[in-house]
Amino acid sequence: MKIAIAQLDYRIGDFGKNTSRIIDCIRNAKSKKADLVVFAELAICGYPPKDFLEFNDFISLCEQSVEKIARCCIDIAAIVGGPSINPALKGKALHNSAYFLKDGKINQVIHKTLLPNYDIFDEYRYFEPNRVFECIELNGSRIALTICEDLWNIIDDPLYIENPMDHLIKERPDFAVNIAASPFSYSHDALRTSILQKNALKYKIPFFNVNHTGAQTELVFDGSSTIVSQDGSIFKLSSFQEEIKYFDLEEAKQGQGFGNYFLKNKSELIYLALIEGIKGYFQKLGFKKAVLGMSGGIDSAVVLALAAKALGKENVMAVMMPSPYSSPGSVSDSIEMIQRTGVDSQTIPIEAAMKAYESILSPAMAGLPEDITEENIQSRIRGAILMALSNKLNLILLNTSNKSEFAVGYSTLYGDSIGAISVLGDVYKTEVYDLAKYINEIDGDIIPLNIIEKAPSAELRPDQKDIDTLPPYEILDQILYQYIEKRQGPVEIIAQGFDELLVYRICKMVNQTEYKRFQAPPILRVSDKAFGSGRRLPIVAKYLG
Amino acid sequence: MKIAIAQLDYRIGDFGKNTSRIIDCIRNAKSKKADLVVFAELAICGYPPKDFLEFNDFISLCEQSVEKIARCCIDIAAIVGGPSINPALKGKALHNSAYFLKDGKINQVIHKTLLPNYDIFDEYRYFEPNRVFECIELNGSRIALTICEDLWNIIDDPLYIENPMDHLIKERPDFAVNIAASPFSYSHDALRTSILQKNALKYKIPFFNVNHTGAQTELVFDGSSTIVSQDGSIFKLSSFQEEIKYFDLEEAKQGQGFGNYFLKNKSELIYLALIEGIKGYFQKLGFKKAVLGMSGGIDSAVVLALAAKALGKENVMAVMMPSPYSSPGSVSDSIEMIQRTGVDSQTIPIEAAMKAYESILSPAMAGLPEDITEENIQSRIRGAILMALSNKLNLILLNTSNKSEFAVGYSTLYGDSIGAISVLGDVYKTEVYDLAKYINEIDGDIIPLNIIEKAPSAELRPDQKDIDTLPPYEILDQILYQYIEKRQGPVEIIAQGFDELLVYRICKMVNQTEYKRFQAPPILRVSDKAFGSGRRLPIVAKYLG
Repeated sequence: MKIAIAQLDYRIGDFGKNTSRIIDCIRNAKSKKADLVVFAELAICGYPPKDFLEFNDFISLCEQSVEKIARCCIDIAAIVGGPSINPALKGKALHNSAYFLKDGKINQVIHKTLLPNYDIFDEYRYFEPNRVFECIELNGSRIALTICEDLWNIIDDPLYIENPMDHLIKERPDFAVNIAASPFSYSHDALRTSILQKNALKYKIPFFNVNHTGAQTELVFDGSSTIVSQDGSIFKLSSFQEEIKYFDLEEAKQGQGFGNYFLKNKSELIYLALIEGIKGYFQKLGFKKAVLGMSGGIDSAVVLALAAKALGKENVMAVMMPSPYSSPGSVSDSIEMIQRTGVDSQTIPIEAAMKAYESILSPAMAGLPEDITEENIQSRIRGAILMALSNKLNLILLNTSNKSEFAVGYSTLYGDSIGAISVLGDVYKTEVYDLAKYINEIDGDIIPLNIIEKAPSAELRPDQKDIDTLPPYEILDQILYQYIEKRQGPVEIIAQGFDELLVYRICKMVNQTEYKRFQAPPILRVSDKAFGSGRRLPIVAKYLG
Repeated sequence: MKIAIAQLDYRIGDFGKNTSRIIDCIRNAKSKKADLVVFAELAICGYPPKDFLEFNDFISLCEQSVEKIARCCIDIAAIVGGPSINPALKGKALHNSAYFLKDGKINQVIHKTLLPNYDIFDEYRYFEPNRVFECIELNGSRIALTICEDLWNIIDDPLYIENPMDHLIKERPDFAVNIAASPFSYSHDALRTSILQKNALKYKIPFFNVNHTGAQTELVFDGSSTIVSQDGSIFKLSSFQEEIKYFDLEEAKQGQGFGNYFLKNKSELIYLALIEGIKGYFQKLGFKKAVLGMSGGIDSAVVLALAAKALGKENVMAVMMPSPYSSPGSVSDSIEMIQRTGVDSQTIPIEAAMKAYESILSPAMAGLPEDITEENIQSRIRGAILMALSNKLNLILLNTSNKSEFAVGYSTLYGDSIGAISVLGDVYKTEVYDLAKYINEIDGDIIPLNIIEKAPSAELRPDQKDIDTLPPYEILDQILYQYIEKRQGPVEIIAQGFDELLVYRICKMVNQTEYKRFQAPPILRVSDKAFGSGRRLPIVAKYLG
């Protein structure tokens, strides 16, 4: 049996394009004598469709697409993910389903059993879980067909009561197919691979997994669809790009031609994911050009390098907005960086606007000392300038804040925290430095060394340094990682050897600045716990606050 | 048996205060010879605790609170909601539980069976559902104890497979207790009452329901705890305030002294909820004073009236920020409104800042015609001024955008769309007019008639009117209501008789402006479908876009 794994980039709700891509692949696979072609979870509508699933109209369009695709499945079979209506009187309206298409029609519909509802996942919001288990059959082979999470309960501390494969294996399937929508994080491919391998070794059959590729606003899908032979050898489709790959079942069972599989390192993974994330946002919304503010610091330098790589240097405008507090070094570092990347630039000094605000605000603020207000005004002037350029020149504003800043609220709401999409909002400051070094290694020395080596500063008052207000990033980021990624409370973090007062201060800062992150742009997700829909916290609360 | 229903306002994560309030109530109830005192769902930690539930430290604090409360339950019993750890090897880590406390200890723990995971609810994110059913016993009476949603499957098209009361009724309980966290919407109390009444009539026992009161960021809890006699008579605790009410079980069974129950009208409900929402945000975060921009239009006038009512006129500052495009009428209407409410005010003309931006931006925009950019700059100047006053004078900025504007993106990102909390973001423009008239009826003619009667305008260019860009609000709001609240697709809305082109245009506008709402402030929820966590849609998508 010849099996095609179609790893594609779908657009949410673009039924015309998704359907025609799927049909093209089926025709192509047929011309190559494939018996079965497999597409990803919810490929019909794209992932995540979110509350569009609550519109009957949207579900009808999904059904029409499935029927259209089914009609093309003559002398070839296909598996494709899409929502299906739950016919039962009781329970939620939909299932998250895998349609098994052959002989020109829908042959069988298999539903997802384990519905992830943690982190960025909300599947139980829409779908009723499956409760019956049966294999599908093709040309005399039995196939254990599951959907993503269905394979993930094979752990010591299982999140669900059921384990679908334990039911399906009773029918003695010849192989397993798992259609998935498994978003990227820098540690996820290793975990995903080990989960699939555990399944293959436990059930002693080969597993064919297919994932999405491409970015959907905050979520990046890395592809990396994974085939595991019955003895646990691994074959990976490419990462961060579309690919259709053909497998002979008998060869795949034995892992013939699988070669070795190497995990990429963290900075490389983050680099690839962020480039894909930027590309996806622009391509899918039909935008070409980006704008960003250049402060002379590491964050904007890294965003500039990534944007130039993702969109082409001719599509990026870097804007310098010096104030009287900008150091000469910041301006010259920015100019150097702009020259090395070859992007367009503008220099727009903000002092005239600072003076205008000072004059119109002085009656209301007479006699009050300077404080954070004046710093925020500078940041908001820069925000307004960038948005004006965005509006006037049809440029999309890239946010340049990093995860450490978002975490402790070290940014100005409606100032430097703005943008259509945040590139580094899930990358801690220390990781930004690693990323900068990685960029310089592989893209030539694009980021001036001085930008990497100088002390971080917001430059909103004379001689300001981040270290005046924050602990060193090496310490801060470790505490933040424990609190955010690992959900360790202060007591547990202190037990790891961190300073008690510092830990409480930082955890409090994180909790008390939730109101700022509530209004942050979508943040490209690269970690297991990004700010945004994966981390949901109340604003008005007192815990550690 | 004497039963006390304690309808309280809890603060999320404030274990000290929540616990001492609960203990005070128990002592008080004991002094009044009550046998049982009942507190709301997740009263221990406040609702919704969201991802704080993922912190072991938070759960430990919950457990310690329950134990402390249990020790006070001597010669009196209490029911109190809190999370509990799921002892099973499989399944999610927690249950959403009702602790039955008596004889100084935890006598029994009952778990929630039906976990709402729609709209603003994410309970399946954290909790494993209950699968065993048993009544609790007190002084020879059997009590069917359920948690909120557990009673809600009594509908024709049930969302869940189980119906907990069908199991519990087999043990022939004498009465039922339902602890809830049921947030306000203007139509919810009627629905909630009918659901409870249906249960009482079906199972022929009295139901004692207890709800939260008070606001938790976007969510307002209206109290309105509901007692239903076994023949379906209704007794309501007060709405939007704390109350402890005592019932004799035998009298309650017969509905003795229940009187008549009247539903409040929509504008009154919205009025009360918004005032509670503002109050709650300020009180719980420890702020006193608010600032808002006064445009001369209806939205800012209504927000001013509500803020003055909620916080006291001495705690509200209204800021007029006229531009050369402001009509003389807008300024005089604003002044009139400020005088009638007696709040503080500031007038800060924005022309100097407009000119500064014009001059600093002119090199980058040379030769390009005026467009929306210049309008947005005005709006962002006003935003920056309000934030400067907020920073300098420790005032909390109230957002004044309405739901119609948020829906179609008729607002400037980082301009008029900003604020710490949005007062009218879940109130359509036509509903804002109704609210204005209601305010004038009950608070005296506080809003000048001219503000109510003139044509809406953003006043960002000469003679601009909303109607230049948008359909009349009477039509727009009906289409939006069908699309947003009712999840009707364009085909279904057109079938109701609306113009085809207009319907498609509006639905597209809603979808295409999701990126603006993503960065909107928290919006006080008064409808069944508010923007925010109750409505989750992808930004990068093509459906109707």
